[in-house]
Amino acid sequence: MRVAYAAVAAFVIALLLGPATIGYLRRLKFGQTVRNDGPQTHLKKSGVPTMGGVLIIFAYFISTWLFALPDRRVSYALLVGIAYGIIGLLDDFIIVVAKRPLGLRARYKAGAQVIIALLLALYALTEPDLGPQLLVPFTGQFIQLPPGLFIPLVVCVLLGAANGVNLTDGLDGLAAGSMVAAAAAYGVIAASLGQTELAVLAGAVTGACLGFSWFNTHPAQVFMGDTGSLSLGGVLGSLAVLTQTELFLPLVGGIFVIETLSVIIQVAYFRLTKGRRIFRMSPLHHHFELKGWAEPKVVTRFWILALMFALLGLFALPGAKVLVFLPS
Amino acid sequence: MRVAYAAVAAFVIALLLGPATIGYLRRLKFGQTVRNDGPQTHLKKSGVPTMGGVLIIFAYFISTWLFALPDRRVSYALLVGIAYGIIGLLDDFIIVVAKRPLGLRARYKAGAQVIIALLLALYALTEPDLGPQLLVPFTGQFIQLPPGLFIPLVVCVLLGAANGVNLTDGLDGLAAGSMVAAAAAYGVIAASLGQTELAVLAGAVTGACLGFSWFNTHPAQVFMGDTGSLSLGGVLGSLAVLTQTELFLPLVGGIFVIETLSVIIQVAYFRLTKGRRIFRMSPLHHHFELKGWAEPKVVTRFWILALMFALLGLFALPGAKVLVFLPS
Repeated sequence: MRVAYAAVAAFVIALLLGPATIGYLRRLKFGQTVRNDGPQTHLKKSGVPTMGGVLIIFAYFISTWLFALPDRRVSYALLVGIAYGIIGLLDDFIIVVAKRPLGLRARYKAGAQVIIALLLALYALTEPDLGPQLLVPFTGQFIQLPPGLFIPLVVCVLLGAANGVNLTDGLDGLAAGSMVAAAAAYGVIAASLGQTELAVLAGAVTGACLGFSWFNTHPAQVFMGDTGSLSLGGVLGSLAVLTQTELFLPLVGGIFVIETLSVIIQVAYFRLTKGRRIFRMSPLHHHFELKGWAEPKVVTRFWILALMFALLGLFALPGAKVLVFLPS
Repeated sequence: MRVAYAAVAAFVIALLLGPATIGYLRRLKFGQTVRNDGPQTHLKKSGVPTMGGVLIIFAYFISTWLFALPDRRVSYALLVGIAYGIIGLLDDFIIVVAKRPLGLRARYKAGAQVIIALLLALYALTEPDLGPQLLVPFTGQFIQLPPGLFIPLVVCVLLGAANGVNLTDGLDGLAAGSMVAAAAAYGVIAASLGQTELAVLAGAVTGACLGFSWFNTHPAQVFMGDTGSLSLGGVLGSLAVLTQTELFLPLVGGIFVIETLSVIIQVAYFRLTKGRRIFRMSPLHHHFELKGWAEPKVVTRFWILALMFALLGLFALPGAKVLVFLPS
């Protein structure tokens, strides 16, 4: 029940603080600078305030703090979420306030993310019952990795998740709504693996994203910015690492994987063929937009897929049984 | 697990048969006749084919047939769903093909719905372990109704649900998306009360609505029509009656209740004050549209509320525990 309470509390916090936060961000003129090379129709999004991620972070942090019992894993996941959020905040800040559209230098941004990921990997290696064992989807078996492989894996998981959510965050409501499905699935996964407190955190993230979606849905009144997307990706990656379900993440967060792959494929193909493209534009959501799908249609369809991916992740749980509420 | 399989199967059926169904309906010129007194912006919806509900009914029927074991309650719920779907189909047919915009005469339409509801009530009274006991939300207690009160209640539940979904079906994706949340909640409720086969049906309805949403989301390529909304309302009402959770329905389907109340309040107030209005237009979704919310924004926000109502319904289950996937 605490998982559901945390979700509702985070939802309510985000909903109540939303208007004030948006008003404040707008007064600070933290309007989004829209990429000039994106779809033409997006130019009208200029001026919508960004950095709304602070609202998401605040909502899931307070709600977790209220409903989770003290737990080391939750503390680490929250620390990663906040640290990644700060990296994103710096990035947004430099883009919006200093008007340097490329933001924080890529090497600093990636470097900071790697360092935090390394710290999480070291923690995971030293924590009893955690360490370099991974649950293999659909089998119920664990595989043991050598630390030399586990540490790079954790770095890949965290950077992959953070940048996957970041790339997905290109249409109104897309990243937040997809995170609702992914975080809800991790709530079930964590609860089923006995990690109740991590499940509470996942519930809080679900609620926070749902509350944020209220304002972020098309036409958006606020964007989450890198603040939100890096933080959410960081929490999602941490949930995977701390429940030993790193291999479930590509299923649960399938949308983020597809979006990332679309960019990699597009760039690789472009270089290999010296100038030809597979997609009209990457990330993938822009491809469908340019094919003529209306923005809310792309977003809702991606949400439906995100829900299906989340369900797929649950199918992959070993000996999965239908969840049951026991009447007293 | 069968609940989830049924959901996925219905989703896939709706997705695969969607394009062909839409093409067929369009060739038959089953375009929606848009109400002339609705918001002006809706006039462009003329020509979008309606009766897409046949796709939903087919998807949940086949999927339930594949994944549910033979069960009398499921048969009755399916019969109600199909019978209500046929009433809706006649209505749509008369509107679209015979071009009589008021459709089936209201007295025949309501009469047919009442008769089917009476049959369900009689079945419920004679079935062992069912009868006129209702589970009271938040208490875990049952109250026993005299048959003279139970029969009108069943009629109210079915007509209320069917017409609530029908009224809600006024914006692209609104009714289908809200039904996803309500049917999913009934899947959990039915499973937790030991009605596994009804849970499979609820799962199939969830998946069917999700698959239909793929095509129905803004801007819609197809509408469900009365065919879909009456059938879905009929199934939802039947699920409530056959799990003895009639009193949970106003919580789980809170969106449908609010939409219905907005119409009742508007009409009552209009008559009492001889011409003044509370809402700019009823049902409620049009009120927000006329207040300047974009259509997809109204829809997504109502979806978020629908999800919260579904969660509220689960909270109301007695002694609800989140006991989840057991790793083997």
